[in-house]
Amino acid sequence: MTRGTDTRQRILRAAATLFRQQGYNGTGLNQILAHSSAPRGVLYFHYPGGKQQLASESITLAGRELSTRMVAALAGAPDAQTGIVRLGELFARILEDSEFREGCPVATVALEAAADSEPVRSACDTTYSVWLQGLTNYLRGHGVSEIQAGPLASMVLSALQGALLLARVQRDTAVVHTITQQLADLVGQATRS
Amino acid sequence: MTRGTDTRQRILRAAATLFRQQGYNGTGLNQILAHSSAPRGVLYFHYPGGKQQLASESITLAGRELSTRMVAALAGAPDAQTGIVRLGELFARILEDSEFREGCPVATVALEAAADSEPVRSACDTTYSVWLQGLTNYLRGHGVSEIQAGPLASMVLSALQGALLLARVQRDTAVVHTITQQLADLVGQATRS
Repeated sequence: MTRGTDTRQRILRAAATLFRQQGYNGTGLNQILAHSSAPRGVLYFHYPGGKQQLASESITLAGRELSTRMVAALAGAPDAQTGIVRLGELFARILEDSEFREGCPVATVALEAAADSEPVRSACDTTYSVWLQGLTNYLRGHGVSEIQAGPLASMVLSALQGALLLARVQRDTAVVHTITQQLADLVGQATRS
Repeated sequence: MTRGTDTRQRILRAAATLFRQQGYNGTGLNQILAHSSAPRGVLYFHYPGGKQQLASESITLAGRELSTRMVAALAGAPDAQTGIVRLGELFARILEDSEFREGCPVATVALEAAADSEPVRSACDTTYSVWLQGLTNYLRGHGVSEIQAGPLASMVLSALQGALLLARVQRDTAVVHTITQQLADLVGQATRS
């Protein structure tokens, strides 16, 4: 890796962490520079689109990393019903490990910035689309019908997102497990029907 | 209404609108003052807790107003299954009327500030609790068993919250209707079992 790409990656890594924990408006470029020990000129050289570009690429990076963890959780499960339970456990762990500072790495920035920044909205949209497609394929692969798999994947993602929000507000992962259990039942029914 | 309480209400009203559309970190006290045409000294007289107090009271106000609209949507429906569909239609209308700038009036501020501000977290928690209790009572009143009503209410609220997030990112309310239909089916099953 050349020194240039190393600096670029260091800036992006710092940005991704800060956006995830503080949201879009709560994170300033100066803070990203401080965290990545990079001078301002270098930031604009690597990210001419400034904060919007950094946020878009951060969302894409964080989305890809979480995707890998979701795939691993699902792949380790003996059936789709257990897979959904494992997915819920993964999200509960993310909440607990971060003392409820981190949930979905996309949601906060999405709600803050999607209406005002097309690059940010587009990056959030793409990340959720990739997750939805992965979930749809997973459900299909476990015997859910073609017609049911897409809507059920939307249901799983929506309900988990909402549960993450409620859990952060309640500072308690109980709701994640309550929702996960109901989603697992739904998926169990769909794989048997 | 005295002039003092009138000013207090005007400030709160401006704050509620701005927090709903721009989130917590995207809204400054100066902007709230400008929107409510109030001098800074008056703001601190009425809201000695500053931005955190304004955000907490804004969440409570917006939560109560949306609660009234949700109750009206549910009350006008002939059965619980239709009630859930009406709830989804209400949220889809809020998204469309605001050109996807407004979804849940609590979610953005909750994700941004719940980890850092106990008053804000507490106001979000109380608002969601009131909604959950209302939904639980509604489901019970329509024949859902005591043991099922609470978890099912959590499911309805979580899935709708997640659908609002996805719809804002996709700039399309289709996902709200997809999710609402599945929730209505679940509620239909629970009222018949």
